[in-house]
Amino acid sequence: MGEVVEKSKYKINFNVEGGDPVAVTGGAGESVLELARRAGVVIDAPCGGNGTCGKCKIRLLSGGVSGEKSSHIVDADDAEGWRLACSIKPASDIELFLPASAQAFQSRIRVTDFSGAREAAAFGGFRSALEGLGFSGDHGIEKISVSLAAPSLEEATADRERVEKALVEKTGAGRVVFSLFALRRLPASLRDGDFAVVCVVRREEIDGGLYVLDVRPAGGECPLYGIAIDIGTTTVSMLLVNLETGEPVSAASGGNAQIRYGADVINRIIESTKAGGLERLRNAVVHECLAPLVRRLCLSAGAETEQIYRAAIAGNTTMTHLVTGVQGEFIRLEPYVPAFFKTDPLTALCLELPLNPDARVLLAPSVGSYVGGDITAGVFSSMIYDKDTLSLFIDLGTNGELVFGGKEFLMSCACSAGPAFEGGEISCGMRATNGAIEACTIDKDTMEPKLRVIGDDGEKPAGLCGSGLIDMIGELFRCGIINAKGKFNAEGKRIVKDDYGGAGYVVAFAAESASGSDIVLSESDIDNFIRAKGAIFSAIRTMLAIVDMPQEAIDDVYVAGGIGSGIDIEHAILIGMLPNLPLEKFHYIGNTALSGAYGMLVSGRAAQQVEACAGAMTYLELSSHPSYMDEFVAACFLPHTDANLFAPL
Amino acid sequence: MGEVVEKSKYKINFNVEGGDPVAVTGGAGESVLELARRAGVVIDAPCGGNGTCGKCKIRLLSGGVSGEKSSHIVDADDAEGWRLACSIKPASDIELFLPASAQAFQSRIRVTDFSGAREAAAFGGFRSALEGLGFSGDHGIEKISVSLAAPSLEEATADRERVEKALVEKTGAGRVVFSLFALRRLPASLRDGDFAVVCVVRREEIDGGLYVLDVRPAGGECPLYGIAIDIGTTTVSMLLVNLETGEPVSAASGGNAQIRYGADVINRIIESTKAGGLERLRNAVVHECLAPLVRRLCLSAGAETEQIYRAAIAGNTTMTHLVTGVQGEFIRLEPYVPAFFKTDPLTALCLELPLNPDARVLLAPSVGSYVGGDITAGVFSSMIYDKDTLSLFIDLGTNGELVFGGKEFLMSCACSAGPAFEGGEISCGMRATNGAIEACTIDKDTMEPKLRVIGDDGEKPAGLCGSGLIDMIGELFRCGIINAKGKFNAEGKRIVKDDYGGAGYVVAFAAESASGSDIVLSESDIDNFIRAKGAIFSAIRTMLAIVDMPQEAIDDVYVAGGIGSGIDIEHAILIGMLPNLPLEKFHYIGNTALSGAYGMLVSGRAAQQVEACAGAMTYLELSSHPSYMDEFVAACFLPHTDANLFAPL
Repeated sequence: MGEVVEKSKYKINFNVEGGDPVAVTGGAGESVLELARRAGVVIDAPCGGNGTCGKCKIRLLSGGVSGEKSSHIVDADDAEGWRLACSIKPASDIELFLPASAQAFQSRIRVTDFSGAREAAAFGGFRSALEGLGFSGDHGIEKISVSLAAPSLEEATADRERVEKALVEKTGAGRVVFSLFALRRLPASLRDGDFAVVCVVRREEIDGGLYVLDVRPAGGECPLYGIAIDIGTTTVSMLLVNLETGEPVSAASGGNAQIRYGADVINRIIESTKAGGLERLRNAVVHECLAPLVRRLCLSAGAETEQIYRAAIAGNTTMTHLVTGVQGEFIRLEPYVPAFFKTDPLTALCLELPLNPDARVLLAPSVGSYVGGDITAGVFSSMIYDKDTLSLFIDLGTNGELVFGGKEFLMSCACSAGPAFEGGEISCGMRATNGAIEACTIDKDTMEPKLRVIGDDGEKPAGLCGSGLIDMIGELFRCGIINAKGKFNAEGKRIVKDDYGGAGYVVAFAAESASGSDIVLSESDIDNFIRAKGAIFSAIRTMLAIVDMPQEAIDDVYVAGGIGSGIDIEHAILIGMLPNLPLEKFHYIGNTALSGAYGMLVSGRAAQQVEACAGAMTYLELSSHPSYMDEFVAACFLPHTDANLFAPL
Repeated sequence: MGEVVEKSKYKINFNVEGGDPVAVTGGAGESVLELARRAGVVIDAPCGGNGTCGKCKIRLLSGGVSGEKSSHIVDADDAEGWRLACSIKPASDIELFLPASAQAFQSRIRVTDFSGAREAAAFGGFRSALEGLGFSGDHGIEKISVSLAAPSLEEATADRERVEKALVEKTGAGRVVFSLFALRRLPASLRDGDFAVVCVVRREEIDGGLYVLDVRPAGGECPLYGIAIDIGTTTVSMLLVNLETGEPVSAASGGNAQIRYGADVINRIIESTKAGGLERLRNAVVHECLAPLVRRLCLSAGAETEQIYRAAIAGNTTMTHLVTGVQGEFIRLEPYVPAFFKTDPLTALCLELPLNPDARVLLAPSVGSYVGGDITAGVFSSMIYDKDTLSLFIDLGTNGELVFGGKEFLMSCACSAGPAFEGGEISCGMRATNGAIEACTIDKDTMEPKLRVIGDDGEKPAGLCGSGLIDMIGELFRCGIINAKGKFNAEGKRIVKDDYGGAGYVVAFAAESASGSDIVLSESDIDNFIRAKGAIFSAIRTMLAIVDMPQEAIDDVYVAGGIGSGIDIEHAILIGMLPNLPLEKFHYIGNTALSGAYGMLVSGRAAQQVEACAGAMTYLELSSHPSYMDEFVAACFLPHTDANLFAPL
């Protein structure tokens, strides 16, 4: 008898391009994508691993697998061993090659933390407006110095009681509460400071109490930091802020590590309902994104994490559920009920964030399952809630959310634009990272494109991001290369046909592209994109119809979000994505989720105003609105079935 | 060239009697006791490892060690390889035998959780008194049921906001705050209960708020538990209490695992000031004692740990510092200043206790470095603070604390009685566990003793615990076998002399004893004990002198604490440990630290009363009181140099 082999246990070796090889042992029941997740190997899977996005391409070097051939893999690639990681399971020990492209997201995320010039300008304007409105400095965190006589046998009262007395005498506070962290620091700080200390306190309006968060020896540094965080579905961004001056001292962003469980909120929620899924997703965002970013910010600013005494987080409804570890499965099931809109003040300790353990963490409140804290913070940041005129606020990120109104009313909705604006469900689509074509024009006569690629000079194109798609489709339409239905009208060297007769436009030939293959925008891609832009425009039309107003009633359009940064408004109007209004009515206002969170961080009244905005916003569930489907169908044309809407102004 | 050997790394094998062998690798710089601690091997070291107690005897089977011979090891034992673990360091790979006796403490701790008849009676009396005073049920934890309509597309408000509204409508609360734990349970509980739930809330007096600690589906069980904890230097005891009825449902006690870092608070504090020491001591009590005991209680009661919504802890000043992880090093350094007397309400989460994470954990306040929360809780429990008469409260545990007074004043002090009452610094001393002689009489004619041993029938004596020592020394004195200075007067088969001419009394001959060696009470033991009893009596005298009162002014003496349970008052008076008062003035009131914690648990007003007691108590630092030393010297006689104090009443 030979040795007994456990048939269900195979060894899987990942040869990671540009990284160390990783080995994991697994059974025949897990897909290679699941095995990779378990081994901590990052494979980009925007669709969550259901085989629809085709992004998780890996190459089988040896060994056998089970699983069907994917339509995302052409025959030639199939012959070379290329497979979708989500669609195959090991049937023996296997050896895999994992190309850098399958991990593109984690390493090449585009920053949305105001490092860009346009974003910085928008944020600067917002800060001035905040200060003008008096929304600054009232965050409740302050320093109070106290000095005691050295203790003696005659006066051997405990440290805490003596400092408490001194604080009461100095401030008249009715109640002084020491956090455990502060208490632990107290004896050494007192003696290091020769019985003079600086207490970092939070004043509590609700009971007039003074909450001591930290105690530092007098004479030393005692900076007060806060942190503003935007948890996007795709990207996490944060600002470390000096609470005494309101000045951001350091910024950072990174990918939301939850991406490996799916690009959109629906796939994340589905994952969260599996055994241990909620905890996996919470860990991914808290311990793999937020905590390392906070530590990196502190390192660059020379700060201790415990010196961050206040935090504000903006995220969509699903993100706020996942970061708090609250089950959000009912967000995606009719009647679409989140577990919470608003949270009571949470502490860094209970959220497991590496800040001062008693730092209060504010979450921007949601107003519906698909209009979350990123939007309420954004509405605050845009300040449209305070205007007598009517504004349209559009946040184009992984989801598309819209708010319409002003002082009198605020109507909000989310449209199922899908991931097209971030390159999802588009064969040549990608996120706005290095190698992405972010803008282009096409010569009408030669049909030759002129591309602008994100990255260093000479960066080769790898695909199209959202703004590039808008430009490309706008130019193809303007040049008459595609018709109003998005079908190709023209022929030429850039127009190719696939095996099934579907036409496409070669954006970049193999020789010019990063991958060495043609980058082709197909009719099916264009169709997917038209649905996405149609979803947004029909949402705008539906909101206008509810208040019985023409689109001319919109005085201003505020475009926010990562994708908003680069889009060309003229092209977006040309394809019927944005309403046909004079260009001067459009304003790019940057990452308003982050700027809104910043506002909540530096000002308690601003945080209250964000809550007031949430309270003032009505939530329109488009999917259950009777006229929305008709509007959507009508909007799935270039620019629209009703050409009058896009007649020259 | 042969292989390179790392000279400083030796392999140490512990052959544990009655347990699995344990191996650890260590250098020549660590004592065997330190190596054992690092390997998780329990070796009893009441003195903290400084070579004075002689309890950590182990046997070297092979290999070499460095270190001096201890006077605790007789030559014959030395020849057999017996050493003190604290006094030797490895000089090669070594093999050791660890006898069960060196680990006696952990497995044979005596319970102090009211399982005994006298303790149960005392606690029953206390509960009746509490209820009589209205100190019950006002702990603020209650259940509120709410029932909602199922959500719909028309009413898709989030779960939290709908429950909040229902709670406000039902209770009129100005503010409802959900803990993160409650929020996490909310969506599933709502749906499991068909949108009817029971909310477990805490009413906050300070702001009129309602704090939701838990949400359970309607129709299921929803018990409300609380836990009362006494953290003694030696023993940890707890009661799981039904908060709705006030009934204790389960009790448990166990050794304080900190014991391996020293028997008394001074050695613990010294250990806590070493690198990582504070964390080691906190972990020992929190994760090795409290957490397992809580889980055991919950298991036996069929409760979930998260259903414990309130806790109260009483412990001495050092214990409250160590359990909270606050540095208490200044407790032992003049002018003896603790970091805190009182803590603001702490949560189970921040203390890392396995209870409902937002359960409020009350700590009984201290009044001085050596009069802690166990005494303030005890004074409350004794109710002497409310009496017009004058009482003396004595808590005899690992430390001896005294409180004297009544409604008009309360004076407290601690005496450095040392560990003698728990068998420390006594060669044949031991804690009140199985095998301990807890009572005895001696026949005056034959000098033969009659022993009462803790344990099952036929349990062989292993040593003397505190009450046994009092009896034994009292009887030796009564029978004229020792004189007023504690020196032997008599000769006989039970009187032996050691190599240095010091006499001793054979309490039990080798054939009768558990160890198979003679149990001998030596003059030096008696001397140590006389100092301990002298410390207590002189403390009483000093307090009386301060208020200029004779001992007859004491109307009642309340004896509390583990040792108090078994002591014979007549013998204690006979040796001059307790004042010479009529026996009916003495009352045994059990483990008042635990009963006081119970009071704080079941009643918010009781908790306030404990704080009021602490506020009313003055703290007398005996060591700095001028007349104390004279009183102490005078009391180091049997019964006292002033025989009038002990003249027949």
